[in-house]
Formats: sequence, C-alpha cells, structure tokens
Amino acid sequence: MGHQRSAPAVSAAMHTAMSAAGEVRGTTSPNPPVGCVILDSAGEVAGVGATRPPGGDHAEVVALRTAGERAAGGTAVVTLEPCAHTGRTGPCAVALRDAGVARVVYAVADPNPPASGGAEILRAAGVEVEGGLLEEEVVAGPLRAWSHFARTGRPHVTWKYAATLDGRSAAADGTSRWISSPESRDEVHALRRHCDAIVAGTGTVAADDPHLTARDPDGAPAAHQPLRVVVGDRALPEGARVLDAAAETLRLPGGDVDAALAALAARGVVDVLLEGGPSLAGAFWAAGRVDRVLAYVAPTLLGSGPAALADAGVSSLSQAWRLDIEQTTMSGTDIRISAVPRGR
Amino acid sequence: MGHQRSAPAVSAAMHTAMSAAGEVRGTTSPNPPVGCVILDSAGEVAGVGATRPPGGDHAEVVALRTAGERAAGGTAVVTLEPCAHTGRTGPCAVALRDAGVARVVYAVADPNPPASGGAEILRAAGVEVEGGLLEEEVVAGPLRAWSHFARTGRPHVTWKYAATLDGRSAAADGTSRWISSPESRDEVHALRRHCDAIVAGTGTVAADDPHLTARDPDGAPAAHQPLRVVVGDRALPEGARVLDAAAETLRLPGGDVDAALAALAARGVVDVLLEGGPSLAGAFWAAGRVDRVLAYVAPTLLGSGPAALADAGVSSLSQAWRLDIEQTTMSGTDIRISAVPRGR
Ligand SMILES: NC(=O)c1ccc[n+]([C@@H]2O[C@H](COP(=O)([O-])OP(=O)(O)OC[C@H]3O[C@@H](n4cnc5c(N)ncnc54)[C@H](OP(=O)(O)O)[C@@H]3O)[C@@H](O)[C@H]2O)c1
Ligand SMILES: NC(=O)c1ccc[n+]([C@@H]2O[C@H](COP(=O)([O-])OP(=O)(O)OC[C@H]3O[C@@H](n4cnc5c(N)ncnc54)[C@H](OP(=O)(O)O)[C@@H]3O)[C@@H](O)[C@H]2O)c1
Repeated sequence: MGHQRSAPAVSAAMHTAMSAAGEVRGTTSPNPPVGCVILDSAGEVAGVGATRPPGGDHAEVVALRTAGERAAGGTAVVTLEPCAHTGRTGPCAVALRDAGVARVVYAVADPNPPASGGAEILRAAGVEVEGGLLEEEVVAGPLRAWSHFARTGRPHVTWKYAATLDGRSAAADGTSRWISSPESRDEVHALRRHCDAIVAGTGTVAADDPHLTARDPDGAPAAHQPLRVVVGDRALPEGARVLDAAAETLRLPGGDVDAALAALAARGVVDVLLEGGPSLAGAFWAAGRVDRVLAYVAPTLLGSGPAALADAGVSSLSQAWRLDIEQTTMSGTDIRISAVPRGR
Repeated sequence: MGHQRSAPAVSAAMHTAMSAAGEVRGTTSPNPPVGCVILDSAGEVAGVGATRPPGGDHAEVVALRTAGERAAGGTAVVTLEPCAHTGRTGPCAVALRDAGVARVVYAVADPNPPASGGAEILRAAGVEVEGGLLEEEVVAGPLRAWSHFARTGRPHVTWKYAATLDGRSAAADGTSRWISSPESRDEVHALRRHCDAIVAGTGTVAADDPHLTARDPDGAPAAHQPLRVVVGDRALPEGARVLDAAAETLRLPGGDVDAALAALAARGVVDVLLEGGPSLAGAFWAAGRVDRVLAYVAPTLLGSGPAALADAGVSSLSQAWRLDIEQTTMSGTDIRISAVPRGR
C-alpha cells in the first residue's frame, strides 16, 4: 500500500535521477554516469546525486551525504543497481544499508559481474529492492553508451553530421561555414561536452582546421573537454588548432576502425562522437561501427559539393544501411534526425 | 447577430469547400479548382460542388443544382470570388443572385480582371458579401498553383524527389527501386492525379523507363491522367513506356526552362510536377523556377551513387538556395518535407 501510494513520487524521482545522470555524461568514464535520488520516509526529495569523475564518489554516496539523517526509513531511486564491490570507492549497497534506507528502486541491473550483487546485499539486510523501473528510458538515455560498452566491449559511436537537404556537407568551392543553424551548432557543443572523445579524420583537419573543443554558447571553453582524436596517417598541418593546449589530442593510425576503437577503449573511452568527414564516417559504416546517427539537415540546396558520406561499403540499393528513426525534431531551422541502424 | 451565430457553420463550410476543390485539382486547368457549399437559411448544408472540367459547370452552379429551392435565403461559401463574366458558362454571380442566396462568403478575390466584379454584381442585388475567409489556407491549398499562375503567368512548379538521408537518388550500380516507402509512392500517385503535367528529363526516361502515369494503390490507372512531358533533345529509346497510349506525352526541347514553361502555359498547364532527374531539376533551380519542394527522405544511407540534385547554379555556400519548411511529416518510414524557396 505504501508502495502503491508512493509510485508517482518514485517515478518522478527516477526522472530526476536520469537528469542528474545526463548532466555528468562524459565526465565519469570508464564508470557509468549514474543518478540517485533519496526520498525520505514521507516521500520528499532529501538528496540528489550523480557520479563524480573517476576516483570520486558514486551517485548514491553523493545523494546520501545531502540527505543525511533523512535517508533512514526512506527510498533510494537509482538509474543503475547499486554496486557491491570495493573499487576506488566503497560499495554503494553497503552505504545505502548503513544509512538505514528501507527501499531501493533501480532502473538497470548491473551487467558487470564484479559489481553486481548490490541488490542481494541489500535484500539480505532486509531492504526492499525493486529493479527495472524506466529501464528502457535509462538504457536509451544516460546509460546508452555505457550499456553498449558493457555489452560489446566497444565504445558507443554517434556519427554526427550536418548537411543540406540534398546531402552536401560543403559547397563546390569548399565553403561549409555554416551549413547548420546557430541552434544546431550550440547543440553540437553540448554533445561534445557529454562525450568522452571527438573523432575526426586528417582530411577534415587539413580542410577545416577545426578546434574540436566543447564551447559554451558565448564561446568560452566548457569545463570538461573530451579527448580529441585525429585518425589517419598524414601529418597534421603545422599549427593545426587540434594541436593546441585547449584539450588533449590523440593521434591514431588510419585504416582499421576496430583497432582505433580498441585503442580508445583501452584509454577508458566509452562514448565517441564521430564528427567525420565523409571518408572516415564511410569507413566506420563499412565496418558496421556506427551505433547512432545524428543528422542536422539544413533547409538549403546546393546541387554540387562533397557529399556527407562516402564509401560506406554499399554499391547496390539492397545493401543500403537502413535506419530506424528515433526522433525527428527541429533545431532552429534545421531538421534534426536521430536514428539507429536497423536491428540494433 | 445571425452573422455571429452562423460563423462556425460558415467556417466549417469553407473547409468542406476547400476539400471539394482539392479533389478536382488537376482536372480544371486552365480554370481554377473551386469548391462551393450552399447553406440553407437554417445554416444546414444544402449542396456541395466543385469546378467541372473545362467547358463544364463551375462549382457554384453544381452546388446550387443540389441545393435547389433551399438556396433561397441561404449562404454560399466559395473558395474564390464568384465570377462575373460570361465565358463558356454563365456568370456564377448571376446564378447565385437568381437562386435568391442572401449571403456570399468567399476566401480569395478573383485577381483575373475579366472575371472579377462578381462581388459587385451581388452587392448591387442586395446580397451580403464578405471576402477573405481562410484566404491564406486556400491560397496555400487548392488555389496554390492557380494563384501563382494568375500572379506570374507561369505554371507553378513542385519539384518532387526521393533520396536517402545522405542525398542519393540511386545506388552506385544505378539501382533506385525503391528508395522511398510504399506509402510515399502511393502519395506520389495522388500528387500526379492532381497536377496538370508531369515533367522529366530524357536522362530519367533513358535510365529508368518510367511510365509517368497516375495509378491507384492497386496499380489501376487513375481516371485523370496528367500530360506527360519529356524535356531534352535526345531521342527517346524505342518502346519507352512514356510513348504508350496510357496518357498524352509532349516532347519539349532542352536548354531553356522558361521556354518550356511558356510552352506548357500555352497548353493550359497551370500545375507542374517536376519529377527530375537531378540535371533537369538543377536547371529549374538555376533558372529560379521551382516554387515548392517535396522531398521524400528515406532513412537509409548509401555513401555513393548519384545525388538528387546537380548543377543548380550554386558554387559557394552563400549562394545556396534557402528554403522555408512548410511541413515535416512521416510518410511510412520516410521523412516528407514540404518547403518553399525563401522569400516566395
Ligand atoms: N558537414 C559535416 O558534418 C562535416 C564534418 C566533417 C568534415 N566535413 C567536410 O569533409 C571534408 C573532408 O573530407 P575527408 O573525407 O577528406 O575527411 P576525413 O574523413 O575527416 O578524413 C579522411 C582521412 O581519414 C583518414 N582515415 C583513417 N582511417 C580511415 C579509413 N578506415 N578509411 C578512410 N580514411 C581513413 C585518412 O587519412 P590519411 O590519408 O591521413 O591516412 C583519410 O584520408 C571537408 O571538406 C570538411 O568540411 C564535413
Ligand atoms: N530519386 C528521384 O526522385 C529521381 C527522379 C528522377 C530521376 N532520378 C534518377 O536520375 C538519373 C538520371 O539523371 P539525369 O540527370 O540524366 O536525368 P534528367 O535530369 O531527367 O535528364 C537530363 C537531361 O535533361 C535534358 N535537359 C533539358 N533541359 C535541360 C537543361 N536546361 N539543363 C540540363 N538538362 C536539360 C537534357 O537532355 P538532352 O541531353 O536529351 O538534351 C539532359 O541530358 C537516373 O538514375 C534516375 O534514376 C531520380
């Protein structure tokens, strides 16, 4: 009955936990970006927390610290099953138990063998435990890249590109600033802030000299800068902006997409934003290593100029990469399409 | 007061008149596709009519015939100002007056000097006349092409194309059936049914041997077949399907878009569906003669193959054709985008 009555509060708390987790995406890898809300025994929010950068506290510990005594007899709402292992931090399941939490509701079971078992520890201590609340939303949302990594051992790759309605990513004379709307460009900086690594090919660096940093709408660098990764064997131009001190930059040899992803995984990169250009994006497609597409399609037509995607391993229509559209929205004047390869 | 009370009925009647007009689009040129609803004195629908093919009755006469005696003291709701001239049919304003209609509400004033004056005739006979109701909707809807023609003297051109998300209209090996979803293909047949002429280049005829007819979802030919127009100087392949007896086919020389449009206008063509291919579409764009774009964007990626649009007279991004999106909807799994060149 208490269960029934508090269901809307718990579901609202899970949404709050998801938001908190979303905000720390990109700063926690290789740990999962987790959100936690502590409700006191009356069902009021007593504390909200999210995973701190590696070596720092987990979400549950952050939320418990704010909740203090109010955690006793309350409910912990967490996007991921509380961990059971003592790594760089103590096990969260134990922290929740010791705080006297009466009930724990989580979205996603921990697929990671050394960490799982948190639910068991809690149940053994008499805590009511329930899993699976808003699980799909969390897996499609804040835990998307991390769940993919846990399942496949490979970083999750989002291919982001901007193109005209006729699929051009630049005009015939090479001009490409700006195809997309200011709103789309701001959104891309938010995407960068929330990923672990931005990947581009040497062709893009040579052609556009991009900075590949995350910036606020006013142009100031964001607090968290993802790793910049340039793939390809060519030397970078002297003074290329990706070589400045604004963020770390990694060079990787070209040719083998899986080798590049393995090198990134070895560095703790879980969430990759692939920004192109068309050849490198084509290589990722041909290797079957794009997990999501974010297309910013501008309402313009060029009729000439380079295409957004080249050599994706397709020569006949029957071999086309088919996508399931997740969402179509407007981003300023652009049409923003989020899609996943069919069958993923 | 009667006015105030009947406003919702009149507005509903105008929507009905718009639907009736929309259904005859493509069968009335060079006359406008008009819809008319007669409400009796109690505000009930007594008759609905739409323009008959050239030489036949106008919408008002069709609706009055159904309404009979109930027209007396009633309201005529028409998408276009009733005509005042005696052409192949008698003036509609006189027919409405003679039927004893007490009030006439229309959307769009007749811009055509010989025909205008209908409102005046009616007012002189003591009929209450009001113009402008849902005018924008009618001009953007059933009277779109005709209003454009009346203003510019040129047929209205809708460029319809199907492409992948990366802007390809065929795969590298030439396969292009089918890029778009079955729903989109059905919709294209409805578009064809409602236009005056379908225009394609010799390149498309040579490559795809299209039939360029309007067919029902079950494959049967539609009752109304638009004129098929093939533009270009090349000879058509022997036995090309556009040369069969299913509909009339017009050959026009290539090169000069305005000359082609003038030749179509001279034949009474008001509403053109330009189906490509990329070169002919590019020529229409370069000439500034595309009035609307209907893009069916499939959620697929190819990475190679011909682009949907070529040589549109643009070499730098600042010269790009900028569009205002009218509507973005789903058509089966495709994203359907309707847009107009900015500043039209
Ligand atoms: N609209 C957009 O969203 C967007 C985004 C980015 C770029 N662009 C445009 O893209 C253009 C550059 O095109 P691009 O194709 O040259 O750029 P790119 O894809 O960034 O770079 C191509 C280079 O990537 C390297 N590479 C590494 N692994 C590869 C593999 N497996 N297969 C193929 N290449 C691999 C190769 O470098 P090495 O030869 O050095 O080995 C290759 O030459 C610019 O005009 C830029 O404006 C547009
Ligand atoms: N996805 C779609 O929606 C769609 C639609 C149609 C076609 N397609 C594809 O398009 C491909 C054919 O491409 P295409 O470009 O050759 O076809 P096209 O545009 O239909 O035909 C090109 C021809 O049009 C003639 N033309 C007339 N006036 C012209 C002008 N002012 N400028 C340029 N050309 C003019 C020329 O013919 P002459 O040389 O005879 O003078 C020219 O060679 C096929 O693969 C087809 O599948 C795709």
